[in-house]
Amino acid sequence: MNTDDRHSDRLDPGQLGLGDMDPESFREHGHAVIDWIADYLEGVEDRPVRPRVAPGEVRGSLPAAPPEHPEPFADAMRDLDELVMPGITHWNHPSFHAYFAITGSGPGILGEALAAALNVNGMLWSTSPSATELEELVLDWLRQLLGLRDGWRGIIADTASMSTMLALAAARERSGLDVRQRGLAGRPDVPMLRVYTSEHAHSSVEKAAIALGLGRDGVRLIEVDERYRMRADALAEAVREDMRFGYRPIAIVATVGTTSTTSVDPVAAIADVRDEVVAELGHDVWLHVDGAYGGMVGICEEMRWVLEGVDRADSFVTNPHKWLFTPIDCSALFVADPTALTQAFALVAEYLTTEDEGVTDYMDWGVQLGRRFRALKLWLVLRYFGAEGLATRLREHVAQAQRVAARLEANEDLRVVAPVPMSTVCFLADPGWLAVPEPDPDSPPPDDPAAAAVVRRGVARDELNRELLRRINGSGAALLSHTVLDGRYVLRLATGSLRTTDDHLERTCALIEHELAGLRGVA
Amino acid sequence: MNTDDRHSDRLDPGQLGLGDMDPESFREHGHAVIDWIADYLEGVEDRPVRPRVAPGEVRGSLPAAPPEHPEPFADAMRDLDELVMPGITHWNHPSFHAYFAITGSGPGILGEALAAALNVNGMLWSTSPSATELEELVLDWLRQLLGLRDGWRGIIADTASMSTMLALAAARERSGLDVRQRGLAGRPDVPMLRVYTSEHAHSSVEKAAIALGLGRDGVRLIEVDERYRMRADALAEAVREDMRFGYRPIAIVATVGTTSTTSVDPVAAIADVRDEVVAELGHDVWLHVDGAYGGMVGICEEMRWVLEGVDRADSFVTNPHKWLFTPIDCSALFVADPTALTQAFALVAEYLTTEDEGVTDYMDWGVQLGRRFRALKLWLVLRYFGAEGLATRLREHVAQAQRVAARLEANEDLRVVAPVPMSTVCFLADPGWLAVPEPDPDSPPPDDPAAAAVVRRGVARDELNRELLRRINGSGAALLSHTVLDGRYVLRLATGSLRTTDDHLERTCALIEHELAGLRGVA
Repeated sequence: MNTDDRHSDRLDPGQLGLGDMDPESFREHGHAVIDWIADYLEGVEDRPVRPRVAPGEVRGSLPAAPPEHPEPFADAMRDLDELVMPGITHWNHPSFHAYFAITGSGPGILGEALAAALNVNGMLWSTSPSATELEELVLDWLRQLLGLRDGWRGIIADTASMSTMLALAAARERSGLDVRQRGLAGRPDVPMLRVYTSEHAHSSVEKAAIALGLGRDGVRLIEVDERYRMRADALAEAVREDMRFGYRPIAIVATVGTTSTTSVDPVAAIADVRDEVVAELGHDVWLHVDGAYGGMVGICEEMRWVLEGVDRADSFVTNPHKWLFTPIDCSALFVADPTALTQAFALVAEYLTTEDEGVTDYMDWGVQLGRRFRALKLWLVLRYFGAEGLATRLREHVAQAQRVAARLEANEDLRVVAPVPMSTVCFLADPGWLAVPEPDPDSPPPDDPAAAAVVRRGVARDELNRELLRRINGSGAALLSHTVLDGRYVLRLATGSLRTTDDHLERTCALIEHELAGLRGVA
Repeated sequence: MNTDDRHSDRLDPGQLGLGDMDPESFREHGHAVIDWIADYLEGVEDRPVRPRVAPGEVRGSLPAAPPEHPEPFADAMRDLDELVMPGITHWNHPSFHAYFAITGSGPGILGEALAAALNVNGMLWSTSPSATELEELVLDWLRQLLGLRDGWRGIIADTASMSTMLALAAARERSGLDVRQRGLAGRPDVPMLRVYTSEHAHSSVEKAAIALGLGRDGVRLIEVDERYRMRADALAEAVREDMRFGYRPIAIVATVGTTSTTSVDPVAAIADVRDEVVAELGHDVWLHVDGAYGGMVGICEEMRWVLEGVDRADSFVTNPHKWLFTPIDCSALFVADPTALTQAFALVAEYLTTEDEGVTDYMDWGVQLGRRFRALKLWLVLRYFGAEGLATRLREHVAQAQRVAARLEANEDLRVVAPVPMSTVCFLADPGWLAVPEPDPDSPPPDDPAAAAVVRRGVARDELNRELLRRINGSGAALLSHTVLDGRYVLRLATGSLRTTDDHLERTCALIEHELAGLRGVA
């Protein structure tokens, strides 16, 4: 083979032939990669959480054309260090508090490496019995850890977006309209279909509705109470109103741990509404519970209340890759009756038929045929930490969030603006020294000068908080995110990483105060 | 922490506290895992390709309840060896020739480990700029390797099933019916929609249609020619007929490398039909090309013909996890115009808004929000082998298939029953000694005794081939799969693994002959 002369003496024997990396070279590079990872995880705290790169900078630093000749593995590792790492946002940093804080733990990382090496496709039981059976087993373990009733069956999807889409596809099929065969288009016999979820639900519900041909109009957002929980009475009213106008309710999606505030919808009360509606309608209405983030905390006995009513649902999703220390991606979808999924999706091409009986062929449960061995990493994580170790860690994250909330509340310029049931603190700066702009002299005087002043103060406060977030995140020392609650721009601080200690949180709280103080002069 | 006394002296320090596996323990276990993988890959040939486990056996060998206490990492590795591995189907075995033969190469495995360690979620550019930009870059490298025109933009999905679903969602949106907002249900203004693909297309097209609310009725299967390629004339006729009956064509899916035979649809002629239909209809008809497996061989100059016409398509999928030595999952979806995807799917919740401009936020391109850093493994694979090394390997797999076909054809009892353009040989046993059952004496005599004899011979031949496959696969020495072509049960032998040499193939061919000879006495 004609290889680049500069490299040929540093190439592996396996690189030059027709095969894979040879075993000795794999050992050499593999050990180097393990050390690289250990060094990275050990030193991640010294890196800026958010990278300081401009759009296009990373890509621009790499060759625009693919390499013609094989390159030494070490050269790629050097470029990873020098060119790629400067553009990484460090989700592993102990002061990463944006979105939801996650951890791809040691056993999870090693499980992912093992799964990649085995490289099985668990589409059928026979294409790797252990992949299917370990998936069934670890999801049953997870069910037991969460205290859910016997009978739930699980499947691992990549993300909760996909889990929710599969659940809503099953719901659509259960509507009795034979959507699998006949579709929804061009059918005068099909009414408008509706899915109900709270205005604080994750955007994946609407995305699923788009994908499934229900459209955004097919999702009705139900208002929340003062603690950002879906109002069951408003749900009942909305469903009845829709029915009067000829809509057919097909599903309700409750959330356990909403994305903005980790609020917990009253699942039991929502299930009551579902039951009433079903009695009136005479056809199924599916109840899906999105516990992608927050459901996992049910592992702690004293937090089990968050799952109250979930056993009455038809499906439930919770993501080990969010708050169970498993590298992304790993989403656990539980269904009360898997035939709801297989009736929607099973479609066996001749080349996939087998003679096996009484086995689970997971390809029948959803859209994707290819299925990697995600159960392996979850199995290693569950064994490594054990039920006790997992509960202890989750409990600590909840306690950390409580301590952060108390710490921020103690500052008279900051306000915690939502309950903190789990690991996420929503707060804003509202200092007495905030400069509120005078009314615009060119505008006509407002009817209610006091109300107008409140609005002007709100605009100024939002701008202050936006700038505060920019400065905190720009420092590289911590990363927070934001949301909007009751029209107010709000900062979010999420705990949940195994690397975060009280010391880190104290430093982040001090940073928030420092940056806020720095704004006093300019805001 | 109260841990199990039997284990406590073998637990890692990190296991006992509130954190992750400590760095020194990670190093220790990580090096052990690398050696385990190297040993496994080196010795995989000595294992049976297909495991000899009964349904439920693996699961039954493991505890039904999750571990209460943390367990030593080594204990899990021991159970992996002793309990899980006996139930693994070895896709890495050099004599794995079922479905499509794949390789999760050394650089790909290490890339997966690195991605799991970084554990970034590339939903937004800002949540890891390098993840987004490396994804853009490596897909542009792949575009160049395939000789596709400048302007295609790529996104990595998990599987081709998902890539095709996203493409058809974009097609549906382009139909001008505002499905994203209004959905398909309860709309008298929406006609029946139709997607066209060949009867040899992958089942994922129908699964996507189910998911998207088009239904199986929304897919019209077009007949193939004698080489299993979609007939463009039959396509044109079917579309025109549908239009007369009020259907609205929204997409055509052509296949480059069908699953049964790796046949290649005439994409250019299909694009001509599309253009004619669009001119008549006055609205878009999307052309999607499914090259999930076979598209990749376009990397070889002399095989580039398989992609003829693809540059006229709207989308194209090809899977590095199939024939580009990347561990599952990694599916490359190219679109001519990404706004077709973003118009269908972009939906930015407040908590995901950023102030970045001019960047790619891949979450807007599809259903899934969570996106792991799949580009990293593909980048390492492309650099490790280089364009030249990749082409040489793919070329060898095509040549291997040619040699296998010639070798099997040379046996008078075997027949190769489909062209072999890529890496897959479809054949059947049709020996002269095949015992054809006599007519059933209780049945009335057939009108055409000669035709009835042919049918009886076909039934006997199918049964013979079914039993032949059972015996080959039951031997554990090789794994083939099957399909049905023109009503005949046919065996498939797929090359494409980096571990397969001519010696392995010769042994498999000899095994086929040996098992067939063994059937002479009983068939």
